[in-house]
Amino acid sequence: MINQETLYVDLNERAYPIIIGSAFFKDGFVFDEWISGNDCLIVTNEVVAPLYLESLVSQLQDKNVTSLILPDGESNKTLTIWAQIIDQLVVMKASRDTTIIALGGGVIGDITGFAAASYMRGIPYIQIPTTLLSQVDSSVGGKTGINHIQGKNLVGAFHQPKLVLIDIDTLNTLPKRELISGLAEVIKYGAIADYDFFCWLEKHMQQLLNRDQEILIKAILKSCSIKAQVVRDDEFENGRRAILNFGHTFGHAIENIKGYGEILHGEAIAIGMILAVELSSLKHSDINRLEALIISAGLPHKIDSINIDDMYEVMLMDKKVKANKLRYVLLRTLGEAFIEEDVSAENVLNVINKRVS
Amino acid sequence: MINQETLYVDLNERAYPIIIGSAFFKDGFVFDEWISGNDCLIVTNEVVAPLYLESLVSQLQDKNVTSLILPDGESNKTLTIWAQIIDQLVVMKASRDTTIIALGGGVIGDITGFAAASYMRGIPYIQIPTTLLSQVDSSVGGKTGINHIQGKNLVGAFHQPKLVLIDIDTLNTLPKRELISGLAEVIKYGAIADYDFFCWLEKHMQQLLNRDQEILIKAILKSCSIKAQVVRDDEFENGRRAILNFGHTFGHAIENIKGYGEILHGEAIAIGMILAVELSSLKHSDINRLEALIISAGLPHKIDSINIDDMYEVMLMDKKVKANKLRYVLLRTLGEAFIEEDVSAENVLNVINKRVS
Repeated sequence: MINQETLYVDLNERAYPIIIGSAFFKDGFVFDEWISGNDCLIVTNEVVAPLYLESLVSQLQDKNVTSLILPDGESNKTLTIWAQIIDQLVVMKASRDTTIIALGGGVIGDITGFAAASYMRGIPYIQIPTTLLSQVDSSVGGKTGINHIQGKNLVGAFHQPKLVLIDIDTLNTLPKRELISGLAEVIKYGAIADYDFFCWLEKHMQQLLNRDQEILIKAILKSCSIKAQVVRDDEFENGRRAILNFGHTFGHAIENIKGYGEILHGEAIAIGMILAVELSSLKHSDINRLEALIISAGLPHKIDSINIDDMYEVMLMDKKVKANKLRYVLLRTLGEAFIEEDVSAENVLNVINKRVS
Repeated sequence: MINQETLYVDLNERAYPIIIGSAFFKDGFVFDEWISGNDCLIVTNEVVAPLYLESLVSQLQDKNVTSLILPDGESNKTLTIWAQIIDQLVVMKASRDTTIIALGGGVIGDITGFAAASYMRGIPYIQIPTTLLSQVDSSVGGKTGINHIQGKNLVGAFHQPKLVLIDIDTLNTLPKRELISGLAEVIKYGAIADYDFFCWLEKHMQQLLNRDQEILIKAILKSCSIKAQVVRDDEFENGRRAILNFGHTFGHAIENIKGYGEILHGEAIAIGMILAVELSSLKHSDINRLEALIISAGLPHKIDSINIDDMYEVMLMDKKVKANKLRYVLLRTLGEAFIEEDVSAENVLNVINKRVS
């Protein structure tokens, strides 16, 4: 028997729980408390739908449920697909009492969340993330959005869900490469905010890769609780929340250039974290530990053939750029991140150069 | 010399001033306090641009200013035009420090506000409303949005501006019909929240129509201050803010059926207010006073040839519909509104029928 864990994201009137456990799809979950109206729209994709949609619908038998099955993949996180969700809500005559349920990975969560944020200026939604990446990252914290051809998540909103429901059984059907991609964000939490968790990961990486349920729940719970605390202190990313972007200034640029889908988010972030610590004054042995942990997870630590100037150009388009100054999240020690604006372009280009294989 | 008036919309960390006066375009206005970064995007339309754009740009000489001139009219408050503003921001490499300035009427304010709300999940914006309607209504309160073919403002966000700057000189170039349209919302504020203001409007309607500057400033100030107070008490429209929709459940449906542009917003709202008080138990003499004030402003008080069932169908699509129950904003007395859900479809259809000419 696996424990069920509940973590509260404390955001006053926008507070909500993250419930982590197993067998919600298999044995059922009571949604009553989290859905106030009669109408629900489940948004999912063609990969997840055959696995979990029927089970979810059967648990909402007393509601009017409509399902929308989208194509899979980051390349579909577009204005057009978002408008399709809006159109579906209009067809349903959805009101402010309608609840949207996002069933899928980060793409489904982000795009559905932005539809929930903007339809009638905001209606309730529930996140049921089915990938490790979305369970530990995108489903928590209320960031929603879609991609623009010029950059990731360039359009979106802050909109908190009513509930995040994580069933780790979904990880059993997740391709290995995607599981590994999610581990990059798990490693990130240790690196930026919790040295003990970093050490725990060093010990338990193999069990995580083996999908040991108890170890997975612990890792997800710890990751979400670190994220929840950072989000609570800075919901709208005016300051400290930016530490969650450790590895992301580089990572987003790598994704953008390599092409979404070609390289997975976590793979790009893994390389981004290595580049970021190369910019830090972190001691060499700690850089090695981070790199070793990344390698032990099966994540990449170098970039294949990339044009360095292109990459820097794309980085300048990142949302984290303030007044044309790139901001970097660097590590002071393992477990402590800080934000640095004073990094020369030359240093950055050198570091990228060093890690191009 | 006309006084300059400043009113604060008190929303804690989202608080902002509404500055009302004249000659800001003619003599200049110091924007420094309200624009933190170096980059500005002015969004305006082809009607307003020839009148005020050059003057505004000249007041921002120390900034990098880009202008975007959109087509005029409610039919352009679309996803496509909104995406055009987003694309312009991307081309400028706009960051979270970029300020957007909406120069124009309600369409420009709403669509620009939604672009500001959603680009990078929210960047600062300033409202410079140039129509009476937008000065007393849409520029205040942070509601932004675009229309969907099925309904007005079906997609949008709550996003407060940093500053609302109202130069009443702009009303001198406003077509008479649009001035009158704006007066419908001014009358609304008296009707829902301030009996003394209602009486004051009965006395001063002719001066308002003559564009008497001091009287206009008083009417705008009072309207904005009523709206600001309602918004402060209920920023996200969970309750009392809905009283601002007096006349709008009917009015939006009339606009939708007649076609945006065919009938102006204020004209539709004027008819909507009459329909709403016909549903109230307001005494007959008070209904007559409201109707007389509406007529004295030159606003319509009846609908020409409309299919009543179509109108009711469209009303059911309104954002104010909760769990398929239409909510009506009714008057208890002149100066006091309340929200009523328990109105039979039959009563509503009778009232519409009575006012179809």
